[in-house]
Amino acid sequence: MADSEALPSLAGDSVAVEALLRAVFGVVVDEAIQKGTSASQKCHYSIQKGAAFLGLGTDSVRVVKADERGKMVPDDLERQIGMAEAEGAVPFLVSATSGTTVLGAFDPLEAIADVCQRHGLWLHVDAAWGGSVLLSQTHRHLLDGIQRADSVAWNPHKLLAAGLQCSALLLQDSSNLLKRCHGSQASYLFQQDKFYDVALDTGDKVVQCGRRVDCLKLWLMWKAQGDQGLERRIDQAFALARYLVEEIKKREGLELVMEPEFLNVCFWFVPPSLRGKQDSPDYHQRLSKVAPVLKERMVKEGSMMIGYQPHGPRGNFFRVVVANPALTCADMDFLLNELERLGQDL
Amino acid sequence: MADSEALPSLAGDSVAVEALLRAVFGVVVDEAIQKGTSASQKCHYSIQKGAAFLGLGTDSVRVVKADERGKMVPDDLERQIGMAEAEGAVPFLVSATSGTTVLGAFDPLEAIADVCQRHGLWLHVDAAWGGSVLLSQTHRHLLDGIQRADSVAWNPHKLLAAGLQCSALLLQDSSNLLKRCHGSQASYLFQQDKFYDVALDTGDKVVQCGRRVDCLKLWLMWKAQGDQGLERRIDQAFALARYLVEEIKKREGLELVMEPEFLNVCFWFVPPSLRGKQDSPDYHQRLSKVAPVLKERMVKEGSMMIGYQPHGPRGNFFRVVVANPALTCADMDFLLNELERLGQDL
Repeated sequence: MADSEALPSLAGDSVAVEALLRAVFGVVVDEAIQKGTSASQKCHYSIQKGAAFLGLGTDSVRVVKADERGKMVPDDLERQIGMAEAEGAVPFLVSATSGTTVLGAFDPLEAIADVCQRHGLWLHVDAAWGGSVLLSQTHRHLLDGIQRADSVAWNPHKLLAAGLQCSALLLQDSSNLLKRCHGSQASYLFQQDKFYDVALDTGDKVVQCGRRVDCLKLWLMWKAQGDQGLERRIDQAFALARYLVEEIKKREGLELVMEPEFLNVCFWFVPPSLRGKQDSPDYHQRLSKVAPVLKERMVKEGSMMIGYQPHGPRGNFFRVVVANPALTCADMDFLLNELERLGQDL
Repeated sequence: MADSEALPSLAGDSVAVEALLRAVFGVVVDEAIQKGTSASQKCHYSIQKGAAFLGLGTDSVRVVKADERGKMVPDDLERQIGMAEAEGAVPFLVSATSGTTVLGAFDPLEAIADVCQRHGLWLHVDAAWGGSVLLSQTHRHLLDGIQRADSVAWNPHKLLAAGLQCSALLLQDSSNLLKRCHGSQASYLFQQDKFYDVALDTGDKVVQCGRRVDCLKLWLMWKAQGDQGLERRIDQAFALARYLVEEIKKREGLELVMEPEFLNVCFWFVPPSLRGKQDSPDYHQRLSKVAPVLKERMVKEGSMMIGYQPHGPRGNFFRVVVANPALTCADMDFLLNELERLGQDL
């Protein structure tokens, strides 16, 4: 990034709103955007929310197809742009995702950047979840092409475990775009007659007014851990996710949703009463009711807390994301043993 | 308030954006709004920023006259509404302020509410700064009429000194308006098949996604201090401001901008070389350069930090706001002595 702008204390969705706002500046009125595996699914709801918030309307958001692993299909992006233009709309922004919320999918950024380049579109990459992978020499290839993005959103409060909230918006722009978009020159707050270079005052570049200095905790953490320390965290998280996946494969009654490429380990717990009944007509319906029951039990026991969700045609499954650097393989064993214990009578 | 909605972690300006968004819902396209003492002054810049952010455009914000104390003039509000309607615009929201940023002015809410009622307009009160005064039996009359507002923004992180950020948006509405405005029903985040009443999940009511539980610190502080403890803080702050004002009146070289009605004590430090020269043609120009020099000196010494700003035709003056409950009269004495020490050669 030629120029980077820290926007601490904005959560990922607000950063997406920021990116939309920035893309609108000097440009136009419709957008092509990455979404889930079908029109009824959504990879992150912040884009539609941002479009509503900015007065563009949710109808201006076009949903691009994703493949079965949740990755944007560049051919369909090209097709959607063509359709939008044929309808008289003026696409201006493509939002790709590096690390989707549920499946942890990474969009093919090089191919998407090619499409954007051909059509002169702003490429925003929502790397809120996956951006930290850039710190790992081993795994950063997942983000190949991100250097071609016009804007990137990144949440160190996710994978790096900085305290909520800690978000950054990185821009290629070197024309002081944030100031041009957001500057309101409120003379009673942003005095120009200070004794230091007022270009250092970032207050007038952002949407909010009063806010915490959230960049400080990232800076401190980075100074304390170093590039290598943060890289170790990322690599260890990948190793633990791999361990968990292999354990899931070994055990009866656990079924992976798919082989993960990132840290999102998605799987079903199939209780004893449903094992071997995959062909019965109400199997999926009954399986979908298992995760909510187990969640209730673990919360009431206080032993652990794992999120579940449906995804497109797939019924409720658990999603374990290992980001805490203090976790070990023994914790993964505990997690699976506890699920089995809580679900043995189902 | 019939129904209250806590929106922690939004700063005051974001809350104003929220209020605008809420007012737009089901209604329309132009607004009459309180502003500073002339068209070139602004009481809080968040309203114009919010209008830009929501795609309404800053031209849709009309500036209502304020009197010499910074209070909205209800007759001018009525006039602006008439002018807007005559131009074919449809006013929908009036934003009044309880405790303006610089002068600490409280708008006459009863008279403004009358105007809003006559015209069927949403009344928003930006009580970000002054809202905490409601906790004081002695001073709460400053907010008389606020019970007639449709929405109120309040920042406990200001006068109550809760840690940044801690903001609340209070609504008369009892129709679950926030949910209707912001709800995006992202099924992978806001599951409906939980074991408790999902109406308790507030995540889908707000603009942001990942966020801190900022209401907790307000709740804890309130439990720890009680109504009376918080009331004492407010009353003590008023008493200290009064002490400071009386000290300023006693001393040579200090000049009040106006007799304050709130905690904003605004004054000039007139250095020895300018005393008695009020009639010289460059007096105001030279006086305006004093505060930045003193600010530089106090910052470099590390002894204190007091903000200054111009306001309309008034050149740079200091604004001391006493909110910290640990401060005493001795601190006020120190502050004035230090100003005199730092400025004795000017």
